Amino acid sequence: MSNATLTRHPAQPAAVGGLDLARRFARSARVTDSWVTSNDHLDTWLAEQHRANRFSVTPIPFSGLRGWRFRPGTGNLTHDSGRFFSIEGLHVRTDFEGGGDWSQPIINQPEIGILGLLVKEFDGVPHFLMQAKMEPGNVNTIQLSPTVQATRSNYTGVHGGRPIDYLEFFTDRSRAAVLVDVLQSEQGSWFLRKRNRNMVVETTGEVPEHPDFRWLTLGQIHRLLQRDNVINMDARTVLSCIPRLPDGDGTGDDPDRYRAALRASLSPSVWALHTDAHILHWLTDLKSRHEMVQRQDGLDTVKGWHRDDHQIAHESGRYFRVIATEVHADNREVPAWTQPLVQPVERGVSAFLTRPIGGVTHLLVHARAEAGSRDVVELAPTVQLQPGNYAGLPPERVPRYREEALRPDPARLRYDTVQSEEGGRFYHAENRSMIIDVGEGFPLETPPEFCWMTPRQMSALLRHSYYVSIQARSLFAGLLSLA
Amino acid sequence: MSNATLTRHPAQPAAVGGLDLARRFARSARVTDSWVTSNDHLDTWLAEQHRANRFSVTPIPFSGLRGWRFRPGTGNLTHDSGRFFSIEGLHVRTDFEGGGDWSQPIINQPEIGILGLLVKEFDGVPHFLMQAKMEPGNVNTIQLSPTVQATRSNYTGVHGGRPIDYLEFFTDRSRAAVLVDVLQSEQGSWFLRKRNRNMVVETTGEVPEHPDFRWLTLGQIHRLLQRDNVINMDARTVLSCIPRLPDGDGTGDDPDRYRAALRASLSPSVWALHTDAHILHWLTDLKSRHEMVQRQDGLDTVKGWHRDDHQIAHESGRYFRVIATEVHADNREVPAWTQPLVQPVERGVSAFLTRPIGGVTHLLVHARAEAGSRDVVELAPTVQLQPGNYAGLPPERVPRYREEALRPDPARLRYDTVQSEEGGRFYHAENRSMIIDVGEGFPLETPPEFCWMTPRQMSALLRHSYYVSIQARSLFAGLLSLA
Repeated sequence: MSNATLTRHPAQPAAVGGLDLARRFARSARVTDSWVTSNDHLDTWLAEQHRANRFSVTPIPFSGLRGWRFRPGTGNLTHDSGRFFSIEGLHVRTDFEGGGDWSQPIINQPEIGILGLLVKEFDGVPHFLMQAKMEPGNVNTIQLSPTVQATRSNYTGVHGGRPIDYLEFFTDRSRAAVLVDVLQSEQGSWFLRKRNRNMVVETTGEVPEHPDFRWLTLGQIHRLLQRDNVINMDARTVLSCIPRLPDGDGTGDDPDRYRAALRASLSPSVWALHTDAHILHWLTDLKSRHEMVQRQDGLDTVKGWHRDDHQIAHESGRYFRVIATEVHADNREVPAWTQPLVQPVERGVSAFLTRPIGGVTHLLVHARAEAGSRDVVELAPTVQLQPGNYAGLPPERVPRYREEALRPDPARLRYDTVQSEEGGRFYHAENRSMIIDVGEGFPLETPPEFCWMTPRQMSALLRHSYYVSIQARSLFAGLLSLA
Repeated sequence: MSNATLTRHPAQPAAVGGLDLARRFARSARVTDSWVTSNDHLDTWLAEQHRANRFSVTPIPFSGLRGWRFRPGTGNLTHDSGRFFSIEGLHVRTDFEGGGDWSQPIINQPEIGILGLLVKEFDGVPHFLMQAKMEPGNVNTIQLSPTVQATRSNYTGVHGGRPIDYLEFFTDRSRAAVLVDVLQSEQGSWFLRKRNRNMVVETTGEVPEHPDFRWLTLGQIHRLLQRDNVINMDARTVLSCIPRLPDGDGTGDDPDRYRAALRASLSPSVWALHTDAHILHWLTDLKSRHEMVQRQDGLDTVKGWHRDDHQIAHESGRYFRVIATEVHADNREVPAWTQPLVQPVERGVSAFLTRPIGGVTHLLVHARAEAGSRDVVELAPTVQLQPGNYAGLPPERVPRYREEALRPDPARLRYDTVQSEEGGRFYHAENRSMIIDVGEGFPLETPPEFCWMTPRQMSALLRHSYYVSIQARSLFAGLLSLA
């Protein structure tokens, strides 16, 4: 079964609401090239964007930050406006998975941003308006972001920048219909209970063109998800929340058996090892039996972390650093600024193990507790770690399934790319992102913090907030790109 | 259409799993008397429980508390074990509904308790094992609680009390099947992000008898929900989470048109004014556009509240008081103890307005921000207030629909009882709880913080955590008791 290419047809009315939403998205996923933005043009345009957008990110001492300062009394690093975000201290005590008692710097950003994708049909196929966006922390300057990626500070104009393009489609209900609108968490190890608004809206009206934006089908986006660092984190999380169904077009005949099984496993009637009710029970049980006590306190009170003029770092050299940077860019709301960024000390590893159970693809999901979690745990990839954090630890403290992810069998790697965390807060933060098909020989028995579930079950949970972590959502977008 | 009475039949196997769960509960709701515990016996037993369980709750000075003290430095009132709960300070800033900036005492209890109902079929009808339970804050000593009502401190034995009866059915999966298991929030005005585990489990095995426990059908429980202060708050919240469907037995013929419409509105295929997706969007939009910034600090830092030997109270005399009590009781895990309790200064009012829209019953739901909310707002009753809090305020600060609830038309009152808050933390905390059928003439237009939704939509949200507030769940249990 080949993928489809969308060529120009006479204009026809968009079948908004007439077809089932999930099936319409499945159809868009099958269209891997489109006259609206051809793949050839897309690659050229992306290369041009990288060439044209010069910028520099320079580490500076904290004293060089403009508008940011360490507050007397707490030591918290905050902006003079009281907005944006601050770096504070967090003390954590938990008995989850061996437990722990530690303190660390954490980003506190109570306000909710919009990560919004605008959809419009061309010749009956939904296309998504993607933005070539520069973020200071990106290893490659520019990645493709959702149509709108705006903090509340952005869209209320606190920083005095330019208005956000296309924001009106997300804030004015006469302009577009809401297809997805859900709050989802951000990185729990670095953010205190942070969440963003994941939106997909669809318009049938006129949408002005803009040189930094292009319309892509889901199939074209999936193609880009096979590459390193093209689709940014904010786009991946919104993509993961899009309802998906098999499009029923002969999926059983696909010569790629992994893909055929994955497609079939998106069917609402598909069998699953565990009922939906069991999964909710498993998660409630873990949250209830364990404690996660978070106490906010000044950055000055965190133990084991040291601050000098250029960084706040852990005495072991592990985890992450807080640094200050000066940013110069052409293609940004404001021409130059300084800001703190969080820099992990090494590249992370993020992997879902999958296996067929009764012929249905299942993911091995880990209920993971992170310092800034909103409710003890969220569903995370099977493996998510920075390899260096576990050097010298006794075997019982080493994360489960680590060996499968650190030394994967190449023949079983279905997805293997490097993807970035959000470049507005994180500096050169990358994860090797893998889907590993461990096959039917792999043990079904799991430790209590793990559970096998189908992609359909994961997708159903994504309609609601705070079930699925940002790392799991990011990787789930990668899994869906294989379907 | 009359209600059914369950009389003794030859023993038959329980049809566990064979019938749809929600329809089985609907059938239990139709059975308003049962040989297992007849209504006559029930009333006699309840009266006897009230007679037999002597106890006294005496206000004492804070210095008389054993094991509790105000910590130097913060002024927080905590237990020496570090467990149970503590009274701390919370500073809140929000722009929701006119906004505000205040500080107040708040109960901090990070651990999760179990509120669990045990179900067993007798002659094919699900019965619920209810407990006559004494709580120090109850106006009437004893109310009917779920089978198990245990804090984590209780069931891990921190207080050295007796083991919890029937707890094994909720913690040992070989003893019972899980039907409902979901974390739900508690009172946001008095608790910081507190939640409990709402569980319903079903057994087909032997269940030992206990003099303080009785098996009741849902219909019998509904009968008791028409009385003041019989079914306690913990039971009401668990009952609200039970999936419900019309049982299809001629509901259209019911001469009570309100009840007939209410039953029909529980159908999964029933029309609703707003789609489920719209309701999620409405809620996400409110949470995103508004801020709720909570800052924990010592109890000593709250402004406008004063502490003397006997209470912590607001200088205006409004809201609530924190008091210390000494409790003597026979029927309790431990024979005598002292503890702080929170006492509202007056009886509250809690009301859902309902109206038929297109023949389908809709509730007018309010998205309400409370100091200790987990995520800005939860869905609350149309009106929820202490009347005295709004004396002397300008009209724009008075809660919407207040007049409808304070001066309801008696002909439109479908439900009107006094129900208590949880007696383990709250002293004589009662609400007049009302369902008011405002009829088809009532305006459909609402302020942006309000939304009409059907009972089916509310019930679907209750499968997940933190959508529906404790006050809305409590009142929703009352609404379901009318169906």
